[in-house]
Amino acid sequence: MILILQDSLEASALKKLREFLGETNAEYRDVFLHDKSHIVISSNWCGKSLDLERFSDVIEKIIDVKTEYQLCTRDYHKENSVIDLGNGIEFGSHKTVVMAGPCGIDSEYHLMKTAEFLAEKCGVKVFRAGAFKPRTSPYSFPGFEYEGLKLLAKVRDTFGMKIITEVKDDSHLDAVAECADIIQIGTKSMYIYNMLTKCGKINKPILLKRSFMATIKEYLQAVDFIMAAGNPQVILCERGIRAFEPMTRFSLDVCSAALINELSHLPMVLDPSHAMGRAKQVPMVAQAAAGMGVDGLLIEVHHDPSRSLTDKDQTISCEKFHELLPRLQTICNAVGRTLI
Amino acid sequence: MILILQDSLEASALKKLREFLGETNAEYRDVFLHDKSHIVISSNWCGKSLDLERFSDVIEKIIDVKTEYQLCTRDYHKENSVIDLGNGIEFGSHKTVVMAGPCGIDSEYHLMKTAEFLAEKCGVKVFRAGAFKPRTSPYSFPGFEYEGLKLLAKVRDTFGMKIITEVKDDSHLDAVAECADIIQIGTKSMYIYNMLTKCGKINKPILLKRSFMATIKEYLQAVDFIMAAGNPQVILCERGIRAFEPMTRFSLDVCSAALINELSHLPMVLDPSHAMGRAKQVPMVAQAAAGMGVDGLLIEVHHDPSRSLTDKDQTISCEKFHELLPRLQTICNAVGRTLI
Amino acid sequence: MILILQDSLEASALKKLREFLGETNAEYRDVFLHDKSHIVISSNWCGKSLDLERFSDVIEKIIDVKTEYQLCTRDYHKENSVIDLGNGIEFGSHKTVVMAGPCGIDSEYHLMKTAEFLAEKCGVKVFRAGAFKPRTSPYSFPGFEYEGLKLLAKVRDTFGMKIITEVKDDSHLDAVAECADIIQIGTKSMYIYNMLTKCGKINKPILLKRSFMATIKEYLQAVDFIMAAGNPQVILCERGIRAFEPMTRFSLDVCSAALINELSHLPMVLDPSHAMGRAKQVPMVAQAAAGMGVDGLLIEVHHDPSRSLTDKDQTISCEKFHELLPRLQTICNAVGRTLI
Amino acid sequence: MILILQDSLEASALKKLREFLGETNAEYRDVFLHDKSHIVISSNWCGKSLDLERFSDVIEKIIDVKTEYQLCTRDYHKENSVIDLGNGIEFGSHKTVVMAGPCGIDSEYHLMKTAEFLAEKCGVKVFRAGAFKPRTSPYSFPGFEYEGLKLLAKVRDTFGMKIITEVKDDSHLDAVAECADIIQIGTKSMYIYNMLTKCGKINKPILLKRSFMATIKEYLQAVDFIMAAGNPQVILCERGIRAFEPMTRFSLDVCSAALINELSHLPMVLDPSHAMGRAKQVPMVAQAAAGMGVDGLLIEVHHDPSRSLTDKDQTISCEKFHELLPRLQTICNAVGRTLI
Repeated sequence: MILILQDSLEASALKKLREFLGETNAEYRDVFLHDKSHIVISSNWCGKSLDLERFSDVIEKIIDVKTEYQLCTRDYHKENSVIDLGNGIEFGSHKTVVMAGPCGIDSEYHLMKTAEFLAEKCGVKVFRAGAFKPRTSPYSFPGFEYEGLKLLAKVRDTFGMKIITEVKDDSHLDAVAECADIIQIGTKSMYIYNMLTKCGKINKPILLKRSFMATIKEYLQAVDFIMAAGNPQVILCERGIRAFEPMTRFSLDVCSAALINELSHLPMVLDPSHAMGRAKQVPMVAQAAAGMGVDGLLIEVHHDPSRSLTDKDQTISCEKFHELLPRLQTICNAVGRTLI
Repeated sequence: MILILQDSLEASALKKLREFLGETNAEYRDVFLHDKSHIVISSNWCGKSLDLERFSDVIEKIIDVKTEYQLCTRDYHKENSVIDLGNGIEFGSHKTVVMAGPCGIDSEYHLMKTAEFLAEKCGVKVFRAGAFKPRTSPYSFPGFEYEGLKLLAKVRDTFGMKIITEVKDDSHLDAVAECADIIQIGTKSMYIYNMLTKCGKINKPILLKRSFMATIKEYLQAVDFIMAAGNPQVILCERGIRAFEPMTRFSLDVCSAALINELSHLPMVLDPSHAMGRAKQVPMVAQAAAGMGVDGLLIEVHHDPSRSLTDKDQTISCEKFHELLPRLQTICNAVGRTLI
Repeated sequence: MILILQDSLEASALKKLREFLGETNAEYRDVFLHDKSHIVISSNWCGKSLDLERFSDVIEKIIDVKTEYQLCTRDYHKENSVIDLGNGIEFGSHKTVVMAGPCGIDSEYHLMKTAEFLAEKCGVKVFRAGAFKPRTSPYSFPGFEYEGLKLLAKVRDTFGMKIITEVKDDSHLDAVAECADIIQIGTKSMYIYNMLTKCGKINKPILLKRSFMATIKEYLQAVDFIMAAGNPQVILCERGIRAFEPMTRFSLDVCSAALINELSHLPMVLDPSHAMGRAKQVPMVAQAAAGMGVDGLLIEVHHDPSRSLTDKDQTISCEKFHELLPRLQTICNAVGRTLI
Repeated sequence: MILILQDSLEASALKKLREFLGETNAEYRDVFLHDKSHIVISSNWCGKSLDLERFSDVIEKIIDVKTEYQLCTRDYHKENSVIDLGNGIEFGSHKTVVMAGPCGIDSEYHLMKTAEFLAEKCGVKVFRAGAFKPRTSPYSFPGFEYEGLKLLAKVRDTFGMKIITEVKDDSHLDAVAECADIIQIGTKSMYIYNMLTKCGKINKPILLKRSFMATIKEYLQAVDFIMAAGNPQVILCERGIRAFEPMTRFSLDVCSAALINELSHLPMVLDPSHAMGRAKQVPMVAQAAAGMGVDGLLIEVHHDPSRSLTDKDQTISCEKFHELLPRLQTICNAVGRTLI
């Protein structure tokens, strides 16, 4: 249950409300969002019907949300939320934003070559590449890290693209936040709740990937961690769930994506590359995503995929990407969208 | 490994080949397909390199297939197989065939009303409806069964649509085979191997749904059961896998579908309705399927979904379907296909 | 909802009850079980409170079952059902019955050698081996089939063990039913509903394995298919579910097994061999099963596992089995059971 | 591949080895473990056969490990590792250590009451309770946090039990490390690699739960993160995987546990409570775990489960626990172990 408070109210009246909530044993949290004070009460608490009428001098509006995720729902916000990066790049309006680039930064040469192609031949407006890569082996190259962030800044300065890049833990969150236009939280990091809260205090869009093992409920609760800390700019991303098939890397859960789109007002993008895990099929899966009318696509593209240090098998070449774009554009048009 | 035999050969020479195979303990099976005799040797047998050169008077061609599924692979048949139902209805060419209708037959009135709308307002060419429904409860209505088949014949006679309907076990296979233009084998029946073999002896297209928990390998082996019995007209169908998300019924495995499309020469259709399990999202998932450029779509449509006796939650109304069609058509065009 | 009818009743009164049920649109089925006539009403139908009081001349007892599976529940039958094979072999009392033997019959020599060891050195009372094996490849050896059944009869005659063997489809059900003391339905066959119904008309115990992809609800509904056809002698078997881990074959779902034990009055056995898929760990998993206090264990044992034609990787040697037995016996004793 | 270095070596010779490795592009990491310097080379690098013979003045021993996890394997350390907490509490010898207590700390009263019962009536030697609980909802009570650690210290001081408690992120790692005898990393935190590395620098045993959707390979790689940072005292814990069954919370993956036991030298404990999610079946699943001969059990026990603020459904009462213990003890004895 969400209580939106009056813009001007008496501290003493608010105190009484808090005392009342305290007595009911309701778990709640203070949230400041969209310039308004909220009190969000845990829906676990399905208590005695709260007699809140008498607090009308404090409460402007009561929103009854039946689920355990609240701020991300359409109960809270009916219309699609639009996240605007400027330069015509909007998530949540009738655009499908292509975010392309290599999985990780492996060399300045490849990075700049790929970026040049994407910017100049393809008109890509958002560039993706990881400086901090969560590696499953402690013995593997940890990525270019801070050096990588500098290279991403160079990409932006040179080609004018916006940058999306991943944060893997909070030790480098500030550096990533300074460099990135969109901060990406990867699938293995969705359950790092304290990092979600920290991202909620940053005034930049957060792209939160669904954990490959999270239910829709757990995912949307994770989104609420960010929003409840004050940041309404969350971009949802389905990137494949772990299933039983050994021949594909993951399985893009288009059914859950379709449902999440109904449940939440936030923009949703899909990541065909990580889901599929095989370059040859990435275009087909990207077309499926475009057909759904999503707000964006994350696609791994590399100037020379065979030399990519990470995710080589699922990265498509610049040429394949260039070939795919007009098809995606036509599909997007068919569902009332523009691919940018 | 597939041996395609000479059209004319000496019985004695063939006998020698068989004796030779017998000595090697290779497991094999005689297959007559496309007017040619084949011997298909189990790939489990990865034996001593068979010296088959000397049998060139018997063997026309040796095809080395590395997987345990053989006849359905592109190693055996490079180009897409086309299954032609006449009247311009082709699976495997550049068409996407819409197969629509109610889940099960629940009354003559609703059936005819739905069929009329689909045929006359929507131009649907293949009508789907189940007469024999595998029910998970022994206490539930088992379907209209033989009476249902008569009603389907009436639909065909009245509206000129082709009929696809399900067989649930071999007791009624002959009756279904007589009535249907395409015999559907449902997801729970994929492992009934003796029924697959029986379907392999029928000269009608078989639409074999992937079991919701079959690996790609198991699925394509099941396809080989049908083909090895002599029927090359198999239509593949991905209809959703069982995953861990409780809010969706299944998860349409677009990644596996994309991979199967590379592995097999057979046409592939998708079933957004069963995968999604919620009518509201079926159009979005159908659009994803269309974006992939598949050979067909199975969509549950009912004149009055609220009165459907089975799968009510996932069945869309005639109006919603009518609204969806032009969008699907434009997406199909975008990927070089025509929706029929 | 289960209505148990009076032993003696007027046909006309029964007709009135049926007419009444017909009017309510309740789906129901007549069941004759334990010498009593039952009417089992689909629980899907959660209708207007049926005023059944007035049919007390027909209805002896009304059992309200909240789930869609009914006859297998403890609502219907509170105490554990005991299935007695004679010779002290009971499922459902305080015994844990070991059923051991090779996966499939691969030669008379190995079969008899294995059987001799199990009977004479280990005191095993129930021998398992498959004559009809569901094979996932159409090119593989289909098993010894009818010849295999004769060999199993020979095992029984020679060593006095009871025989459990699998039926894979109804074409050979009669032959299996004649030979076997327990008819086994394998994991891939759980959804063959017409075969379940046929097994319900046979007066022999049926061991129904849970499909590796079935929910508990689907599994117990499948059990009800057998019981509703008149056979109360069903033995439950958990044999592993399909999960995401590639290094094990399946995952023995001990949590579901523990829950099923609460829900159903039927005996439950576990199959560590198929779940694990690796011989080396089978004893450890068998010990886990024994610790749960189950009614039986199915273990694959072969005189010379390296020569087993099927499931070689998960089959333990006679020596390993012999070594395992006393440990299992002590664990069984610890939970108030006797291993036989 | 693991290179164990000579105890005394020339810096210049070591430098040459490093230069050589650098030239080969091998990814490697320096590890100091058991008072020996190691160089662990990523097994991704399966390169040109390294001619390492000539570095025998630097390398004492070369261990060839075929998998991507290395230090946790039996290739590195053949025998079971024993982790000794003093006071006879050993993991990895022939003991099964019971770790019991409430899920979270909900009040001093309940905590002390439960602890008193466990210590005095049951002889439990390790007490479990969470002060920092990862909550899936941002609106829920975050736990007693630092206050909770003080209460745990009180439990230890009063009853002499060792304490195991969870760390949810590195902000409070130092505080937890100071208080706990065993630091627990929960299932949702297994992928927080920088926290694993930090735990690798602490001289206390780390109990690392397998993520509920981690493959065995990912899990053992996570273990290597801790060991590679210098801490060999890792206790493995299987606590249930996410499967498709909605009626159980998770599914205890006994098959993977059995396999991990073969692959790794580290002690392994099981957590029946979280896997099962229903108190009534926890004893049955605990018995299964005991039957496997594991090194420990984590069981949620509460003085008054109905008042537990977290995981109430799966927490058993003190009485039930007391009743279960002798059964577990007898099972442990049957497999050559002592329950402590």
